[in-house]
Amino acid sequence: MIGKTIEELNIGDWAQFQKTVTETDIYLYAGITGDLNPAHINVEYAKNTHFKERIAHGMLTAGFISAVFGGQLPGPGTVYISQNLRFLAPVRIGDTIAARVEISEIDTEKHRVVFKTTCQNQDGTIVLSGEAVVSPPKRKK
Amino acid sequence: MIGKTIEELNIGDWAQFQKTVTETDIYLYAGITGDLNPAHINVEYAKNTHFKERIAHGMLTAGFISAVFGGQLPGPGTVYISQNLRFLAPVRIGDTIAARVEISEIDTEKHRVVFKTTCQNQDGTIVLSGEAVVSPPKRKK
Amino acid sequence: MIGKTIEELNIGDWAQFQKTVTETDIYLYAGITGDLNPAHINVEYAKNTHFKERIAHGMLTAGFISAVFGGQLPGPGTVYISQNLRFLAPVRIGDTIAARVEISEIDTEKHRVVFKTTCQNQDGTIVLSGEAVVSPPKRKK
Amino acid sequence: MIGKTIEELNIGDWAQFQKTVTETDIYLYAGITGDLNPAHINVEYAKNTHFKERIAHGMLTAGFISAVFGGQLPGPGTVYISQNLRFLAPVRIGDTIAARVEISEIDTEKHRVVFKTTCQNQDGTIVLSGEAVVSPPKRKK
Repeated sequence: MIGKTIEELNIGDWAQFQKTVTETDIYLYAGITGDLNPAHINVEYAKNTHFKERIAHGMLTAGFISAVFGGQLPGPGTVYISQNLRFLAPVRIGDTIAARVEISEIDTEKHRVVFKTTCQNQDGTIVLSGEAVVSPPKRKK
Repeated sequence: MIGKTIEELNIGDWAQFQKTVTETDIYLYAGITGDLNPAHINVEYAKNTHFKERIAHGMLTAGFISAVFGGQLPGPGTVYISQNLRFLAPVRIGDTIAARVEISEIDTEKHRVVFKTTCQNQDGTIVLSGEAVVSPPKRKK
Repeated sequence: MIGKTIEELNIGDWAQFQKTVTETDIYLYAGITGDLNPAHINVEYAKNTHFKERIAHGMLTAGFISAVFGGQLPGPGTVYISQNLRFLAPVRIGDTIAARVEISEIDTEKHRVVFKTTCQNQDGTIVLSGEAVVSPPKRKK
Repeated sequence: MIGKTIEELNIGDWAQFQKTVTETDIYLYAGITGDLNPAHINVEYAKNTHFKERIAHGMLTAGFISAVFGGQLPGPGTVYISQNLRFLAPVRIGDTIAARVEISEIDTEKHRVVFKTTCQNQDGTIVLSGEAVVSPPKRKK
């Protein structure tokens, strides 16, 4: 149970994870993080916002990116170094998000890999974009 | 139920949220995000990692920062624009994390506020640091 | 808090448990088991499947059978020995499932009871059928 | 997002999923399925059972098998036909379970694949064994 080592990675390699975001996800996430912003959990408040309805936490969506790193590419053993996030559009209840990571740089000396990271909804709108740096798993000697 | 407008904010203003991270938080978060990395949900695997035990998802901790923005400063109505995250140290089950946000820049013209964001554990170790840009709520006319 | 002993059971005895399956059930179950099959958590993917929408995990429905054994017949103290399951039809979000167990054989010597087990939806369609062997509780001496 | 077709499968192919079972998993599972057997959720009752402590629902563990089918082998698009389960040993809170599926028969004509399915704990004890029949995904024409 080990992901890909830096030698097994190439620029342009990519992977993705998709999930339909539900009210359940948002409510549990609010409880875990303490982020009880009414924009996420209050229908009456949300009616008067720009989006007119409750939306998902931006950071919840960001978690799907982490899911791809830890589960697929590079996979188990990956250490997350940094992540930049730009929240570009709302995620509504029922939206199906595809989180995609793609290798843009490999620094073998520093043992770092840079990924372009994007989350897109079912209409092709990019809701979240950014860049991540991870340290891929090392082979046991 | 509206947070502070940009006119009510000053450089140096800060707020924080604290929570003890439990196994329950990690397991629910894994289910919501699909991030089933064995480092988070497999005791036997974790024994052979650098940290020796299961650790929380870095992005889970990042959610506490969002909780401060949406709940306290600037508070309800805040729109999250961007966030940079550097994952500096592991969060273990039972750690009590304090997420702190502090205003470092205010751009009234663009209606943007920059925050220094840090998450610290009970021993004072900074586990997560970064910078966020948010758009504070506007007063209804 | 003890269920029926083997002496109190008769061939033909039955019991059932009913529950409406919700999106919440499916999402929590996906998180607990790690079964993130897109057929269960991805609306867009599901549109292109035979069923056209997300369906419940078959093994989630099977859990209702266990609920009858442990809660009603024979009840607390029952030990589950084996279960055969045939997944016959999908369970959709909003379906109300009745899990029914009925005694078909009693082997007093081996202290084993065989049950016919079926799960039916609100339209009478059998979604799951099979057979279970359990060891009923013994009276404390 | 499609798993392996029957042409891509071979006898002996295997895959596995591992998870440490927590109290959280058991409590959420109890709520979802309605299986409130005191053996799973009542510490005082459990003290007087053979196992001396609360144990996981056998059917919860069985869900890990489904996770391997839907997520890895054959993967997305797999239809679950049947599953036989023998519950051989208890799963305690903190046990790390490895669910393993291995192909034992392939029937191309009927489009059915038979798997040997086992769940083992961290000590190598087989807690659950059985056999499953699935219909692997078909390539879109």
